[in-house]
Amino acid sequence: MRVYRRRSNRGRRGKVTVVGIGPGGVAHITTKAVNELRSADSIVGFGFYISQIRSLIRPTARIYSSGMGHEIDRASLALELASNGKKVVVVSGGDPGVYGMAGPVIETIKRLDRKVDLAIVPGVTAATAAAASLGAPLMTDFAVVSLSDLLIPRNKILERVKTAIKGDFVLVLYNPQSRSRREPLRLVHQILLKYRNPTTPVGIVTAYGRAAEKTTVTTLERMLDHEIGMESTIVVGNSSTITFDEKILTPRGYYGSK
Amino acid sequence: MRVYRRRSNRGRRGKVTVVGIGPGGVAHITTKAVNELRSADSIVGFGFYISQIRSLIRPTARIYSSGMGHEIDRASLALELASNGKKVVVVSGGDPGVYGMAGPVIETIKRLDRKVDLAIVPGVTAATAAAASLGAPLMTDFAVVSLSDLLIPRNKILERVKTAIKGDFVLVLYNPQSRSRREPLRLVHQILLKYRNPTTPVGIVTAYGRAAEKTTVTTLERMLDHEIGMESTIVVGNSSTITFDEKILTPRGYYGSK
Repeated sequence: MRVYRRRSNRGRRGKVTVVGIGPGGVAHITTKAVNELRSADSIVGFGFYISQIRSLIRPTARIYSSGMGHEIDRASLALELASNGKKVVVVSGGDPGVYGMAGPVIETIKRLDRKVDLAIVPGVTAATAAAASLGAPLMTDFAVVSLSDLLIPRNKILERVKTAIKGDFVLVLYNPQSRSRREPLRLVHQILLKYRNPTTPVGIVTAYGRAAEKTTVTTLERMLDHEIGMESTIVVGNSSTITFDEKILTPRGYYGSK
Repeated sequence: MRVYRRRSNRGRRGKVTVVGIGPGGVAHITTKAVNELRSADSIVGFGFYISQIRSLIRPTARIYSSGMGHEIDRASLALELASNGKKVVVVSGGDPGVYGMAGPVIETIKRLDRKVDLAIVPGVTAATAAAASLGAPLMTDFAVVSLSDLLIPRNKILERVKTAIKGDFVLVLYNPQSRSRREPLRLVHQILLKYRNPTTPVGIVTAYGRAAEKTTVTTLERMLDHEIGMESTIVVGNSSTITFDEKILTPRGYYGSK
């Protein structure tokens, strides 16, 4: 004889997993991320990212997709679903911890004082995807700066760029510009031109891993002559970065200094 | 009637693919990386990394594993094998472009003036793997610095750390120390204590993705009281980083400033 127990979800401690799906397409997703997507009851994410991994979601899973922005709405929804006993995956482009959904989810857990089992699955972030497409520009130390001034004061962003240049870091710019936000990149370009050689190699990688993928190797001087959008990542070389065979290389010095 | 043509590899333009296998284990490898490993004729890499992905290598593939260091030997061997027509994969821990094998391979192509088809497959790098284990410490801008002073002068490393602190970057330290190299981390710690609050959250993540994985949340003051080795990555918070529920969070400010 079997005893059937009606399971109540009330008071169950839910589980939220924030999953990085990598820079684009399905080729650069990790095994762990694929498994999490396949076993989720509920998938929450920005529609553009969900469209990329839809083939990995089981038919019975419920999908909650939303437009750009709305990070806090997505985080709150995920916590709500988890508190109802659902196994929830929050989809994040690239890596969830680099300007992705890990932050908003944890900020919301703190704000709402929720108890929830939280897991974060790392993914390939745009800096390393762009670097792979460009050659080996990050082989000495590098700094990552987002030019989105929605939550971070513009002066703080510009100050960070300035100090990164002083430290001779290779610089990786995330969210360089959108149709409505073009000023920060122009200001950053002026700072870069002031402190770095105008012939410094610059790489622009757009839509990595997707059909529209485009990689441009140019110079600091000519950087703004190229198409740069929401899906672009920019890598600006440091004092030792060179261009070689259409690749960008920051030699670590395995053959001694140049 | 079939015509059999004896294929000569002489003069063939070989192919080298540098593949990032992620931070450890097989869960955090991308689909693309798995496919490259499975279809390779020859696999070249540091033995420790090869041991982690051996189950993904087909039985007919030839494996060339070597000890720590020897990056240039591995790069030269890969180019040699490719020039003989082999489909060569160079295995790199984490992401190949972040202190990995992408640099040595391109430096060697340049040095030997070789013509070769080169592809680089990005992987999950230690900074984002460590961040996933710690919470969301990188959500504002961050700087990545390797403390290995084998090829980079120690003063340059310390100068970079100093400027990263001035820019209020979250700081990620790769290769923090080994049994024989302990001095750089001590010097960096002194600099950090001078310019950042001693209660600044610090995370230490060792052997991410493997059985020996260990995550420690501590403070700048107590950082050196914990075990730190070759497989550790250290994340040092910035002025707004907090510890919450055994997680490290650098709020981007979705709920306004604290």
